[in-house]
Amino acid sequence: MIIDCHGHFTSGPKALPEWRVKQLAAVNDPANAPKKSDLKISDDDIRSSIESGQLKLQQERGADLTIFSPIAGQMAHHLGNQQTSFVWSEVCNDLIYRVCQLYPDNFAGVCQLPQSPGESPEKCIPELRRCVEQLGFVGCNLSPDPSGGYWKDPPLTDRSFYPIYEELVRLDVPAMIHVSSSCNPCFQGTGAHYINGDTTAFMQFLTADIFKDFPTVRFIIPHGGGAVPYHWGRYRGLALDMKRPTVESMMKNIFFDTCVYHYPGVEFLTRIVPIENILFGSEMIGAVRGKDPNTGEYFDDTKKYVDACQNLSTDDRQKIFEANARRVYPRLDAQIKRRGK
Amino acid sequence: MIIDCHGHFTSGPKALPEWRVKQLAAVNDPANAPKKSDLKISDDDIRSSIESGQLKLQQERGADLTIFSPIAGQMAHHLGNQQTSFVWSEVCNDLIYRVCQLYPDNFAGVCQLPQSPGESPEKCIPELRRCVEQLGFVGCNLSPDPSGGYWKDPPLTDRSFYPIYEELVRLDVPAMIHVSSSCNPCFQGTGAHYINGDTTAFMQFLTADIFKDFPTVRFIIPHGGGAVPYHWGRYRGLALDMKRPTVESMMKNIFFDTCVYHYPGVEFLTRIVPIENILFGSEMIGAVRGKDPNTGEYFDDTKKYVDACQNLSTDDRQKIFEANARRVYPRLDAQIKRRGK
Repeated sequence: MIIDCHGHFTSGPKALPEWRVKQLAAVNDPANAPKKSDLKISDDDIRSSIESGQLKLQQERGADLTIFSPIAGQMAHHLGNQQTSFVWSEVCNDLIYRVCQLYPDNFAGVCQLPQSPGESPEKCIPELRRCVEQLGFVGCNLSPDPSGGYWKDPPLTDRSFYPIYEELVRLDVPAMIHVSSSCNPCFQGTGAHYINGDTTAFMQFLTADIFKDFPTVRFIIPHGGGAVPYHWGRYRGLALDMKRPTVESMMKNIFFDTCVYHYPGVEFLTRIVPIENILFGSEMIGAVRGKDPNTGEYFDDTKKYVDACQNLSTDDRQKIFEANARRVYPRLDAQIKRRGK
Repeated sequence: MIIDCHGHFTSGPKALPEWRVKQLAAVNDPANAPKKSDLKISDDDIRSSIESGQLKLQQERGADLTIFSPIAGQMAHHLGNQQTSFVWSEVCNDLIYRVCQLYPDNFAGVCQLPQSPGESPEKCIPELRRCVEQLGFVGCNLSPDPSGGYWKDPPLTDRSFYPIYEELVRLDVPAMIHVSSSCNPCFQGTGAHYINGDTTAFMQFLTADIFKDFPTVRFIIPHGGGAVPYHWGRYRGLALDMKRPTVESMMKNIFFDTCVYHYPGVEFLTRIVPIENILFGSEMIGAVRGKDPNTGEYFDDTKKYVDACQNLSTDDRQKIFEANARRVYPRLDAQIKRRGK
């Protein structure tokens, strides 16, 4: 079984962004805000977008199941206010739920959280609980920068995040650390802000006691871990210089996906990071949509890169494609087992 | 000849930070500001710190010459105001000049610029000229974030930077893109802010016409290019998706150093990035000061990693260690030639 741990519903029906425009237009005019029920998306709309997009590519590329969440760039926690984020998160998460209900073998839900700049992360707990306990979601996305590229909120290691981590532990679900869009002209989104978010989060974890305080909390750092594997020696050395727990000891809690869009990068990842800490991911349809003219293959068809790694045994590949995801997302494992797989 | 393109005077005499404390204490009290002449550092003070620090390690590790600049983390453009930065840059650059005068075979100067948040980069030109034309410096450091971790100033591709680039072209000197310290609690300095600065700058260059407007301008992106080589496919794909000039075409203007603190990372760099675009660098004494317990070697002794790369020919190594630096820093090349080397 091949599990892609990183997919966003980027191919979703147009009614969703149209509803969002109305929501944002009414931020300061709540009487005219659209209701959730004003969003009209039929099952056929969902089937049409999924079957021509994510599901089509999933099947063409030989994956079986995608851990699926709302569009990262559209979480945009910095737009509107806390109430805007509450409603927008519910709308987006409900749509993911419908995808998972229509295609339970192909998609498992991960929710966005209603983070909002300057607001306590604790306020996200009810939506996290709803998604996991009522909608059957298997994890959440957690942004290290709800300010949208200005990094004005506290780091992930701040005590204000601790109630979230307590809840992650209680629910036994992991969080993928994933920024949203950048409104800072210094940071292009998918090439700078995304990768910086990954690198930044790792360094936050390295410099704080979060894994001492939450020994079983689990984070997926996407996009191959940002710059971390490439600079593995730097991080190992910094941890030693700072008398912090070793980078190796952080591997109880941190996992990287394979969203690295060239073969040498994926091969490098598998040689540097313990195999147990690598989860297959593609983020398709996402940041890079074209084909590499040198190979004729899609840049984000990362399964081909994992398949091609000569250094991986069959057992290694099974861990990267399936076993690690089932271990890191135990609620997904339980769902799959209930289906007899 | 082995040229280390990336060294900061981190082992400098204590009188310098003591003077800086007084300068910052008097930001709003100019009458009590210390004068430049109040900074008392003798030639023996310099010899003592250099010979027990940078020069000692340079010689132990088998390099010949370090391209040397003030401490990156202490540039701190965000402290004080424009006038603070003017004076601080002069003080720091003058000290580098003295090092280069005392050890002309071992050190070549690179200046910090008196950038200041919200101020026009053009104001840095007089100090850049002074350092290159009067002090014999061969390049400068240019911060993509004078706000110290809040990224409030325009990107490097903003027109306000164009006068600087005109001057770099006129003087025929390159700039190393290097952030200073971070006062943003989200960003640890050497592990997050530094690497993010590199990745961010590359993506700024990818998305703008700067190399069309300045076909001969040259930038060194340090720390192995941040996350860029590891995500080479992502950047190649983004450039193609965005209908931008290819990443390959950017290699006329962008160079990476070898400040990647483990052998596999340096080996990876040399397999991904054209050899002509890699300059040997160590940033010693800098971000990581300890030894790797696995090897017993200093993490930042990057010469050992380059030496160990089986994929490099003798000619490749000569380019990385010497020829590329002499090409990218023509004023350095001229100085070395004048010394008959």
